[in-house]
Amino acid sequence: MEKDNKLSHLDENNNPSMVDVSDKKVTKRVAVAQSVVQLTEGIVSVLQNKEINLKKGPVFQTAIIAGTMAAKNTSNLIPLCHPLGLESCNISISVEGLNATIICECSITSKTGVEMEALTGASIAALTIYDMCKAMSHDIVINETKLIKKTGGKSDYRNSY
Amino acid sequence: MEKDNKLSHLDENNNPSMVDVSDKKVTKRVAVAQSVVQLTEGIVSVLQNKEINLKKGPVFQTAIIAGTMAAKNTSNLIPLCHPLGLESCNISISVEGLNATIICECSITSKTGVEMEALTGASIAALTIYDMCKAMSHDIVINETKLIKKTGGKSDYRNSY
Amino acid sequence: MEKDNKLSHLDENNNPSMVDVSDKKVTKRVAVAQSVVQLTEGIVSVLQNKEINLKKGPVFQTAIIAGTMAAKNTSNLIPLCHPLGLESCNISISVEGLNATIICECSITSKTGVEMEALTGASIAALTIYDMCKAMSHDIVINETKLIKKTGGKSDYRNSY
Amino acid sequence: MEKDNKLSHLDENNNPSMVDVSDKKVTKRVAVAQSVVQLTEGIVSVLQNKEINLKKGPVFQTAIIAGTMAAKNTSNLIPLCHPLGLESCNISISVEGLNATIICECSITSKTGVEMEALTGASIAALTIYDMCKAMSHDIVINETKLIKKTGGKSDYRNSY
Amino acid sequence: MEKDNKLSHLDENNNPSMVDVSDKKVTKRVAVAQSVVQLTEGIVSVLQNKEINLKKGPVFQTAIIAGTMAAKNTSNLIPLCHPLGLESCNISISVEGLNATIICECSITSKTGVEMEALTGASIAALTIYDMCKAMSHDIVINETKLIKKTGGKSDYRNSY
Amino acid sequence: MEKDNKLSHLDENNNPSMVDVSDKKVTKRVAVAQSVVQLTEGIVSVLQNKEINLKKGPVFQTAIIAGTMAAKNTSNLIPLCHPLGLESCNISISVEGLNATIICECSITSKTGVEMEALTGASIAALTIYDMCKAMSHDIVINETKLIKKTGGKSDYRNSY
Repeated sequence: MEKDNKLSHLDENNNPSMVDVSDKKVTKRVAVAQSVVQLTEGIVSVLQNKEINLKKGPVFQTAIIAGTMAAKNTSNLIPLCHPLGLESCNISISVEGLNATIICECSITSKTGVEMEALTGASIAALTIYDMCKAMSHDIVINETKLIKKTGGKSDYRNSY
Repeated sequence: MEKDNKLSHLDENNNPSMVDVSDKKVTKRVAVAQSVVQLTEGIVSVLQNKEINLKKGPVFQTAIIAGTMAAKNTSNLIPLCHPLGLESCNISISVEGLNATIICECSITSKTGVEMEALTGASIAALTIYDMCKAMSHDIVINETKLIKKTGGKSDYRNSY
Repeated sequence: MEKDNKLSHLDENNNPSMVDVSDKKVTKRVAVAQSVVQLTEGIVSVLQNKEINLKKGPVFQTAIIAGTMAAKNTSNLIPLCHPLGLESCNISISVEGLNATIICECSITSKTGVEMEALTGASIAALTIYDMCKAMSHDIVINETKLIKKTGGKSDYRNSY
Repeated sequence: MEKDNKLSHLDENNNPSMVDVSDKKVTKRVAVAQSVVQLTEGIVSVLQNKEINLKKGPVFQTAIIAGTMAAKNTSNLIPLCHPLGLESCNISISVEGLNATIICECSITSKTGVEMEALTGASIAALTIYDMCKAMSHDIVINETKLIKKTGGKSDYRNSY
Repeated sequence: MEKDNKLSHLDENNNPSMVDVSDKKVTKRVAVAQSVVQLTEGIVSVLQNKEINLKKGPVFQTAIIAGTMAAKNTSNLIPLCHPLGLESCNISISVEGLNATIICECSITSKTGVEMEALTGASIAALTIYDMCKAMSHDIVINETKLIKKTGGKSDYRNSY
Repeated sequence: MEKDNKLSHLDENNNPSMVDVSDKKVTKRVAVAQSVVQLTEGIVSVLQNKEINLKKGPVFQTAIIAGTMAAKNTSNLIPLCHPLGLESCNISISVEGLNATIICECSITSKTGVEMEALTGASIAALTIYDMCKAMSHDIVINETKLIKKTGGKSDYRNSY
């Protein structure tokens, strides 16, 4: 689904520039993004081990906090993002097989959407899991960082594949 | 290649804690990481269009700068990373088919490695490309964020798959 | 005065999560917090010395500025705080005996309150006084960091002890 | 124990100024600080409740992470602190009666000490506990933020009261 | 054109304090500022060289991105500035003779103006050009950082000289 | 004095890139920069007024603190600057006629110099004076931001005009 044939972040001289959103309408906007961390068997067995089953807790909670703080801080990381006052950010993590799937949902009542906030929250949560598990293996891969859906802007989006 | 059977970032009470590196040796450490941004045909054709072929320049340069600044700032994003004075960070981006592959190389002379810096630099560069192209499509996916190699620490690493 | 029997910052899985404030009303909210820095006699006499009586000025002004900047930056320090655009922050410091009492008042027109901003402003101002006086003594203690009052939210609060 | 009769952070014109540490020796320096959060009975019973006894975990782990990130970031909070590359930061929290006591230990091999880092880590951890429990009561008070000991600088320090 | 005979950022005790803007009206506010970087002949010839004429692109684009990020971050740099959610920031750079003139335009719908954001954006863009050219010469000078115009507040301003 | 005919911050593909300093020698490096704030008569008379002569104090001290914090934070503002642990930063401000001249001196023992830190410290101090005086007039201009001297690197520099 191609929406437009131009890159809105380049001005008429092809220089990077923030999009002017001053005339857009204030609406409630929600975005959900994901990131999938492919772990190793050794890591998953330590995280899930019944005897020491608290390990998953602090690892994932650290990732949730890092992702939340990064989502709030997106405009300091992505150069042309607008500074926004996020109204909510919820991150959940579930493990299936070797994959830890991170879901990050952000919302705001604003003139612009929060898809970059949701994607940044998911990405930094994924990197934090990497950091906390890398003493066991560096064979971790982060895949499928993508937008799941967004609502409240000019057009809604729902990932179709 | 499993290195160890414990998560070094949890202390004896399973609480998150920075690893104490005060007794490690200062050595030159290098890490190379990648991230692959899967674009759409519409986006690639705009980026590559001969008539307007400067568009790739500012998009990728913005991504390079964002990635470099994030790599320098890794310890403020990943909770248990040590603050480090990066000595170099070089990011390059190449397009093949629909994929823009980002390679981020970081180095330092320090007591601890820079793999998280290289991974963070690649990830934020990837998210910046997403941000700058998302006006055309949200069907962008970031894949294969992983470590390519690292040298200079207790053991070298080279990604084998 | 117990208000509720649950911790609002934990979601149904006991994971940390920002409270969703998107449906709350925008009202003017004010919070006042304090922090008390217990100094030593030597420090107080240098700060108050008539002959060199400008010393209190730069020490306290540095603390006021640090506290103000920290209050504005609260959501980058306290993981689950909402990013807010403070409309005012006023910090005053008075000395009585060995105690320097810091009062920090913040206000905003927003969906959520600013008590953490006021508490953070007072705390960082207190730590800054500590830093600027610690060459004379490390026997400094920071006490009674607490909320004095808040207005404008679901229920007002006034510290009763 | 008064060490000196001047405020090292004021220059000869009484203006705030970073201390010049360029000629000091590089040594291993350790500092331990504490902060005590006085909770309410209602909060303590929820944190400790056997049936829902995971609540203490995410609250304290969030505080530990916030404190660790703040300790690393001290020089951006306290105006005249030197930027430092912390080599370790360990925060632990224990509850006795109504008091949650936070102990923050930092270390570095550097020309200057890390007492402000330890104090800042303890303070922000304390404020984070406040934030996560304030839905139940605002009658929380943070007391006794102080240095416990420091070693490795010109003179060691051990809190004697 | 003197507007007032007092310094609004000092309170009644001459201590620095954020201005309370809570009762001001929300209006659309625009500010334009400039900064002029005086380069050397050697630098200008490298930037403009036809054979290698891409050099001006990445140098100026890096400056534009740095300036934009700084404009968004003004309230973390200038102690008594209010945190604001910029709605647009556009920076352009043109060379005439030895001078690279930076124009930074910011806008917002808010209770307070964005002149400091525009000035900060122009200044950091200027410093970034300095940084990227200083390997050729340190004889660079940054001049005439000033407000060009502002609209939307209590009174409009247009620089008359 | 042209030193080199290339822009060291562009790599072989003309993309922005941090200079690799890993093989440079660690030496003590000092840099001194200035910035000149041209005020109005009304502002100078308020700052200097004998009866209320403390006003200059808090205005200039706020500027000194803002400049010091910015100098420490330079690598987060200027995209290709190396993160450094400043060992000292001293800022002084003097008024002559309508001009407030800011001198910022930074030092470090490191592989790379601190001229951008000194220039950034002077620039942000200048912008802070602007901010604190702009309620009286926006006819303020910041001029002559330049390097005065630097020592300790490959070659010393002393501004000759």
